[in-house]
Amino acid sequence: MPAEVREMCGVFGIFGHDKAAMLTKLGLFALQHRGQESAGITSSDGTRLYTHKGMGLVSEVFDGSTEATLIGESAIGHVRYSTTGSSNITNAQPLVVRYARGELAIAHNGNLVNAPTLRRSLEADGSIFQTTMDTEVVAHLIAKEGKLDFVSALQASLQRVRGAYALLFLSLRCLVAVRDPFGIRPLSLGKLGEAWVVASETCAFDAVGAEFVRDVLPGEAIVFGPTGMSAIQLLPRNPARLCSFEYIYFARPDSDLDGINVHSARKRMGRALARDYPVDADLVVGVPDSSISAASGFAEEAGIPYEMGLVKNKYVGRTFIQPEQRLRDASVRLKLNPLRRVVDGKRVVLVDDSIVRGTTMKRIVCLLREAGAREVHVRVSSPPYKYSCYYGIDTSSQSELVAALMSVEDIRRAVNADSLCYLSESALASSIGREPGQLCTACFSGGYPVPVADGEGKYALE
Amino acid sequence: MPAEVREMCGVFGIFGHDKAAMLTKLGLFALQHRGQESAGITSSDGTRLYTHKGMGLVSEVFDGSTEATLIGESAIGHVRYSTTGSSNITNAQPLVVRYARGELAIAHNGNLVNAPTLRRSLEADGSIFQTTMDTEVVAHLIAKEGKLDFVSALQASLQRVRGAYALLFLSLRCLVAVRDPFGIRPLSLGKLGEAWVVASETCAFDAVGAEFVRDVLPGEAIVFGPTGMSAIQLLPRNPARLCSFEYIYFARPDSDLDGINVHSARKRMGRALARDYPVDADLVVGVPDSSISAASGFAEEAGIPYEMGLVKNKYVGRTFIQPEQRLRDASVRLKLNPLRRVVDGKRVVLVDDSIVRGTTMKRIVCLLREAGAREVHVRVSSPPYKYSCYYGIDTSSQSELVAALMSVEDIRRAVNADSLCYLSESALASSIGREPGQLCTACFSGGYPVPVADGEGKYALE
Amino acid sequence: MPAEVREMCGVFGIFGHDKAAMLTKLGLFALQHRGQESAGITSSDGTRLYTHKGMGLVSEVFDGSTEATLIGESAIGHVRYSTTGSSNITNAQPLVVRYARGELAIAHNGNLVNAPTLRRSLEADGSIFQTTMDTEVVAHLIAKEGKLDFVSALQASLQRVRGAYALLFLSLRCLVAVRDPFGIRPLSLGKLGEAWVVASETCAFDAVGAEFVRDVLPGEAIVFGPTGMSAIQLLPRNPARLCSFEYIYFARPDSDLDGINVHSARKRMGRALARDYPVDADLVVGVPDSSISAASGFAEEAGIPYEMGLVKNKYVGRTFIQPEQRLRDASVRLKLNPLRRVVDGKRVVLVDDSIVRGTTMKRIVCLLREAGAREVHVRVSSPPYKYSCYYGIDTSSQSELVAALMSVEDIRRAVNADSLCYLSESALASSIGREPGQLCTACFSGGYPVPVADGEGKYALE
Amino acid sequence: MPAEVREMCGVFGIFGHDKAAMLTKLGLFALQHRGQESAGITSSDGTRLYTHKGMGLVSEVFDGSTEATLIGESAIGHVRYSTTGSSNITNAQPLVVRYARGELAIAHNGNLVNAPTLRRSLEADGSIFQTTMDTEVVAHLIAKEGKLDFVSALQASLQRVRGAYALLFLSLRCLVAVRDPFGIRPLSLGKLGEAWVVASETCAFDAVGAEFVRDVLPGEAIVFGPTGMSAIQLLPRNPARLCSFEYIYFARPDSDLDGINVHSARKRMGRALARDYPVDADLVVGVPDSSISAASGFAEEAGIPYEMGLVKNKYVGRTFIQPEQRLRDASVRLKLNPLRRVVDGKRVVLVDDSIVRGTTMKRIVCLLREAGAREVHVRVSSPPYKYSCYYGIDTSSQSELVAALMSVEDIRRAVNADSLCYLSESALASSIGREPGQLCTACFSGGYPVPVADGEGKYALE
Repeated sequence: MPAEVREMCGVFGIFGHDKAAMLTKLGLFALQHRGQESAGITSSDGTRLYTHKGMGLVSEVFDGSTEATLIGESAIGHVRYSTTGSSNITNAQPLVVRYARGELAIAHNGNLVNAPTLRRSLEADGSIFQTTMDTEVVAHLIAKEGKLDFVSALQASLQRVRGAYALLFLSLRCLVAVRDPFGIRPLSLGKLGEAWVVASETCAFDAVGAEFVRDVLPGEAIVFGPTGMSAIQLLPRNPARLCSFEYIYFARPDSDLDGINVHSARKRMGRALARDYPVDADLVVGVPDSSISAASGFAEEAGIPYEMGLVKNKYVGRTFIQPEQRLRDASVRLKLNPLRRVVDGKRVVLVDDSIVRGTTMKRIVCLLREAGAREVHVRVSSPPYKYSCYYGIDTSSQSELVAALMSVEDIRRAVNADSLCYLSESALASSIGREPGQLCTACFSGGYPVPVADGEGKYALE
Repeated sequence: MPAEVREMCGVFGIFGHDKAAMLTKLGLFALQHRGQESAGITSSDGTRLYTHKGMGLVSEVFDGSTEATLIGESAIGHVRYSTTGSSNITNAQPLVVRYARGELAIAHNGNLVNAPTLRRSLEADGSIFQTTMDTEVVAHLIAKEGKLDFVSALQASLQRVRGAYALLFLSLRCLVAVRDPFGIRPLSLGKLGEAWVVASETCAFDAVGAEFVRDVLPGEAIVFGPTGMSAIQLLPRNPARLCSFEYIYFARPDSDLDGINVHSARKRMGRALARDYPVDADLVVGVPDSSISAASGFAEEAGIPYEMGLVKNKYVGRTFIQPEQRLRDASVRLKLNPLRRVVDGKRVVLVDDSIVRGTTMKRIVCLLREAGAREVHVRVSSPPYKYSCYYGIDTSSQSELVAALMSVEDIRRAVNADSLCYLSESALASSIGREPGQLCTACFSGGYPVPVADGEGKYALE
Repeated sequence: MPAEVREMCGVFGIFGHDKAAMLTKLGLFALQHRGQESAGITSSDGTRLYTHKGMGLVSEVFDGSTEATLIGESAIGHVRYSTTGSSNITNAQPLVVRYARGELAIAHNGNLVNAPTLRRSLEADGSIFQTTMDTEVVAHLIAKEGKLDFVSALQASLQRVRGAYALLFLSLRCLVAVRDPFGIRPLSLGKLGEAWVVASETCAFDAVGAEFVRDVLPGEAIVFGPTGMSAIQLLPRNPARLCSFEYIYFARPDSDLDGINVHSARKRMGRALARDYPVDADLVVGVPDSSISAASGFAEEAGIPYEMGLVKNKYVGRTFIQPEQRLRDASVRLKLNPLRRVVDGKRVVLVDDSIVRGTTMKRIVCLLREAGAREVHVRVSSPPYKYSCYYGIDTSSQSELVAALMSVEDIRRAVNADSLCYLSESALASSIGREPGQLCTACFSGGYPVPVADGEGKYALE
Repeated sequence: MPAEVREMCGVFGIFGHDKAAMLTKLGLFALQHRGQESAGITSSDGTRLYTHKGMGLVSEVFDGSTEATLIGESAIGHVRYSTTGSSNITNAQPLVVRYARGELAIAHNGNLVNAPTLRRSLEADGSIFQTTMDTEVVAHLIAKEGKLDFVSALQASLQRVRGAYALLFLSLRCLVAVRDPFGIRPLSLGKLGEAWVVASETCAFDAVGAEFVRDVLPGEAIVFGPTGMSAIQLLPRNPARLCSFEYIYFARPDSDLDGINVHSARKRMGRALARDYPVDADLVVGVPDSSISAASGFAEEAGIPYEMGLVKNKYVGRTFIQPEQRLRDASVRLKLNPLRRVVDGKRVVLVDDSIVRGTTMKRIVCLLREAGAREVHVRVSSPPYKYSCYYGIDTSSQSELVAALMSVEDIRRAVNADSLCYLSESALASSIGREPGQLCTACFSGGYPVPVADGEGKYALE
């Protein structure tokens, strides 16, 4: 339950359906876990683009009547992550621009590592920027390629860009979906009757009743237009290295990423943990909601009963703030309550998907001990999180990552666990069903598939 | 997952703490599952009462600054259930009245079966009513007993009342908590330092860091006042018959009701189902969130893997409405998505806590079959729901209860299950850890512990 | 421009029109100046009452769709005054109660001087109160008269009540309008096609396109029911003594009260001032908006040009609060700006309708002097305001009324005027077109037509 | 009362005050009449810009706490006009961009006639646009002049632009105010202690307690920076031709534009009307609020009493919509009510400031006749409005301007007046106190001081 990790965004697009905006709203609903800060949809009826976006959840931004004003048979939508503070309507997506070829809307999940460099270069040429989003850089690059047709301009632009992304473009007549050359961010293709759909995760296809067709390939562009669908290898196609953290934490358990079901992968991670780091215990508890699958896998493999040792209050939202120092403890308990009758006197295996700063884990172990747990053995279904992500996951800087600063034994002591074991990188890969080199595991290994720019790394203009 | 069943309310009170209103807010947060329609708090500083109430969730009604205006060292709070339509600020609680003895606030969970009769009698005597709540009847009765001290007036009033209730009263100097003579609705007593707390469920004690002391006894009043706490057997004390549906569905798994943990009871219900109605299957799936405990109990007892076969979208709230007929199916999928990779080709045991109208169950079985389930065996962790509740649970009228209209075999056919079995009443009782006569099971057996009034039964003035 | 004086309320009713609620909304719009704190409408379709009320302006409470839910052919509506602080949805009207005869809604403009006494007596008999409004006392009294028909019960109840009021009652089948025995608060009767309308002011008739029929007489009840309209002299009919402050300040200039147009009366007050207290000056300025009529009357009579010497910012609403001490002056200027080019170097006659505490007048004189006015002669179109009103106008207590504390000369010095003259009581009466005894001038003379209760006077339970 | 005419915007800036944003809010309050659709403020603390903008009135967008987050000692603010439909947060100002020189905020009142041409040219060079505002064109032009210092870049950019404007620019360290070469849009300079202020109208200076210094000259730029204030004749300085409609309708009566008080000018227009088009009548009525000054001027000159013959309901806002056809008439009356007792049987001179489409005037004449007016003589305090404005006033297209389509006699008949006279252009100019060539009167004469682009004229991309 790494509250300190934040996924950037989710994208959804549909082409050729008379309820395009309505279905995009449904798709965004299914992708809501990927971003709760803002939501937006742009549609096209062939004569102009229609956009509505706002701060908040999809259900807050689109109230039932709003999407009815987004007419047309194609649409793209976007949900954006939640941060504290600098959230801003200006940065809500889709980004809509007018340029020489007309109107263009862009929805983007990911991060461009060389965006600051490109931005400075564009500014030196007289460009103006109205947002702090990488996406605006892409729009400028495309507009600069004025002599080329759109797909060629897109190709020329993306050749200058380095990073991880799933990008959707909507013009009056076309929808284009592109995935980065390493396939770090997920993007899938589906079909709903005659209409085509694309989405960050397949759970969005289920939400609209679409069928999964295939995943978009690394470096591939899928173009939907008046003459139908065509797939173009826009950029060099590298061996896929999908973000392993999508499997570990971000994606919904009912999504299949590059052909692998997320819940099943998590369960295998839990099983691997149980095999590699067995422990004599009375029950297995998962941190809700993201670690339930791994915990049940651990329990099954170890033959130890799985129990609901922690109950999450689903009504405690992001806005709940507790002003008084002395009420803080109560506030923690509000969100997560240990089940005293279940854990009292017991030796507990606590399964979580990751430890970022360590503060949450420390509190949970403390809660379990207060509830009477005799022993608390922590099992983490991922390797130690040591390196910052530059590909679209907004974690803290490396100086805040506990595994970058301490040994496992020191972390164990810090969180006050009786034992602490992390899943190995190779066990992670095999649990997912890949070779180690077939995933992005930069946050664990420091092996960044896309070089990170000039020592500065993460793009943080604001 | 009976969306058709609605619990009435939750109550919380605290006496003798300088953060009374703030802690009441935390307590209501923990009880939010018992009512999402409205929330309210009344506090007392010994000179007057302070009240704030509004429509919506606790976090919407109390924004952090509001509760700061509710000064004083004692407070009571209330959350009210959500319905479609007639929800109304007039019916939000606490109900605050001024009468001969000064100000009085009342918070109420439950239902009085003879309220219409009492109301007519009071009206005939010249009383006026401003709400449609039973609670207003209680206020009138107390005010009429002008010559008696408050506790005696309360006793005289409650002797005229028949029903199921947990009632909290707050005057300038006292807080009184009363539980109905059969203890049908739950009410527990706790302690937070020197302060006393009462709540519908013990999870609210955990939320404020209070310790459980004991449950309030049937017919007992606990009086907190300037001279301390005293317990009075206000009404005849019958053998306790706590509502069995609190264990089956309403209460939070981390609450202990009359000494029994809800999660553990549910797990035993699942185990009993597995023993009594075994089935040859590949996996066990529970309907989230309320049936997870029972499903995992079934899986453990049967030795069949428990799987996350259905994923719930936690962002789909009560306000999501789908206008278009042809998008309805998508709307169902939005809320609950089957995990195709898990259920495809499998024989599934589907555990749910109850079947009320049958429509939800039919849709879930259909979703699983569409996802490839080869067989779907439904196991319900409660007996057939055949009789309307008159004690505070707002189900549909009996004519809408599918088990009142059809045989089990007919229901099985209607929901398109391969098999369908219900937990027996005796297994239910033993799973909870009681004798059959020690619970209210009126909705299953028709045996109403408190006689239901004059053939009309349920009070429905509006 | 006495910001320190607050009128209580405005009422509107309609009987026998298929757009009853919609027209009531229009009527309340026209009466909005009488109260901006809350608004509410209750309608009847003969089977039940429908109510919607809320805090804020009519346009905020009724958004176009809300009034559509208030079905039926009769309705009453209410707007309530704005105060700082204790404003509260509980006190919004119409007050709706259920009692032996069914449902009853009440809308009330005015004040009952013996309400506290009646309330204590009712409480002693076991009654409960949920609001702090006089109106609730009336509802109790009516309900107590259970054996009588409604009109008789109303008569018996109002015989026990002392005060000033315009009261509207709506039951399932009838609408009843009553005016107090001295006619202190205004109430008029009109007709719109076949439908009957009643309103606090005739401007509401214009708003709905109704024709004025006559004013309701002191002590008279007008009953609209299935058998048509009937007028009943419910209480002793005293010689009318309409509140003179309605003419001076409250009522809209386009309203006719008891047959006299408000604008014209104000203009005559200005003329009388000019005749009685002439002054050698260059221009006449009225304090907007309420003193424009009197100022133009003064200018015409005196033959001095009337000028727009003060401009009011119509966008500065009640919620504009200036936190910083040093920005206060700017805040005053925001609301009222002197027209420097007009007043610079000039001798100004400043006409205002009244001086309550004197603080506003002091600031305005100061503004004019800063803008270059050489002399400022204040002329007030009413006598010195010396006595608190107990009949529905919520002024400050007598200890805050500057004219109760100081001589006219002292006030002149305090507000820094070159001269200060008040209209005499007899000139006020003749300007309105009445004999002195035909108006309520209690706030000027202390001659209260209805005796004020037991030395405590104003009812202030909260 | 030309509801069909809409002024674009108002601007306010302050440099060197520690309450910059707070005072900008006060300034915008005073300019609220120039735009009610959106409001925004950008401040600078020397290290970055802070912006808040939103839809609605200043009091809705800035709630007291918002402006506290806009730190720094310089700020610019903007209010934007209200339209039906295409209002959009994207078009709210200030527009904030990042470019090679850093951050820049722009607030703009006016219109650029060659914006579409410039835009196409910029797009051809690869620029992208995110709004439909002219202002964005200016931002692009400035950014393109990368080698020049800011003021030189501004000069080079504005040399390419044709139109009418008051422009405010805020960078980290400087605030620049520019007025178009003909001074068509107003812009004044003031001083508040050590701080400098600029505003569309001087009433904003009064609101913040600033003193008027002088008007910005045509083509002049005033630069406020770390080294103080400097005035630069940035563009050729033409003889001033301030928009005559500012005097006639837009500006607040307490503002002085280019040294002339608006109220006084309007009063002289009314006097001129009375001299040039006398009429035998009983009273003079002005259409509130904008025609009150002219009407009182007419009354004084003609020796006919000025009367409040029409009362405006100040609570009827822009959002009041009347769905039902049969309630439309009531809706008109809601906003404007004739004073029957004043006009009944009388010969009325009705003074209005302009007639655009004629529909409003027709309704008002009709209201007066229904209220009993024997004759209605319309006097318009401006010449016939025949030509569309391309300089920032969003009137209807020429095909909707009644004076472009009909003779005066035909209009008289259409609005059902007994007589109809317009002020002549020369009388207009002399009333204002200018020679005819010293004002922009394009809407009356078709003589556009700035050539309107290529036959297409008005810029209407959206």
